[in-house]
Amino acid sequence: MKATTSENSIFPKGQQGSPDWFTGTVRVTPLLAKDKNNDFSIGNVVFEPGARTHWHTHPRGQVLLVMEGNGFYQEQGKPARSLKKGDVVNIPENTVHWHGASANSLLAHIAITNYKGSENVSWLKPVTDHEYSKVNE
Amino acid sequence: MKATTSENSIFPKGQQGSPDWFTGTVRVTPLLAKDKNNDFSIGNVVFEPGARTHWHTHPRGQVLLVMEGNGFYQEQGKPARSLKKGDVVNIPENTVHWHGASANSLLAHIAITNYKGSENVSWLKPVTDHEYSKVNE
Repeated sequence: MKATTSENSIFPKGQQGSPDWFTGTVRVTPLLAKDKNNDFSIGNVVFEPGARTHWHTHPRGQVLLVMEGNGFYQEQGKPARSLKKGDVVNIPENTVHWHGASANSLLAHIAITNYKGSENVSWLKPVTDHEYSKVNE
Repeated sequence: MKATTSENSIFPKGQQGSPDWFTGTVRVTPLLAKDKNNDFSIGNVVFEPGARTHWHTHPRGQVLLVMEGNGFYQEQGKPARSLKKGDVVNIPENTVHWHGASANSLLAHIAITNYKGSENVSWLKPVTDHEYSKVNE
């Protein structure tokens, strides 16, 4: 059975992410800010079914740890990778990609986002409904 | 009710940690190795009730994300901090400490361990039964 609401949340419910960066309802709970030892930030991200990031890049990559549900990770020009609980995604630097829930299931993942100087992400255009429906076929 | 066996494991069951570093049954699942972007390793650590690390230090700190159960984090000479699901511990560099399950509950946490050069941990002596029983009072 696919999860459509998070019944097993480990972290507090986050605030809704900006429509400038996400399509659909995405909640982000900050867990740790960059500091002198940790050259990354950590957050928990919960995508409702159908929700996803916009296309984006990270200047020094990002690690995703999938906590719950089902979804996708796709690099531009490549087939999408299905995501499920326990998966680890090591996203390379400067690589156009998106991630999010499947059409029928939520997706929850921890994101560990490395910094290059003061930057950790560059946002691009939305993943269109056409692009999204192709990976859900 | 306190969990004594992990009924909700997100990550695969790991191999048993060495008695040189742990007291009791501790299972460690490696999730990510240090690489060119990620100056840290990530693992999931599950402590059975009563199990704990030895005293140890990290040259550039470590972040714990508590996934399940109940336990403790204690820096030398300070009161222990209770840990529960959703807690985040930002362990400073070169600080003698231990972490582990409570006597009556397992503890599962993700550990993100920063490197300083090729080193990320220095192990010290075991947490004695006397030291451990005091934090469980």
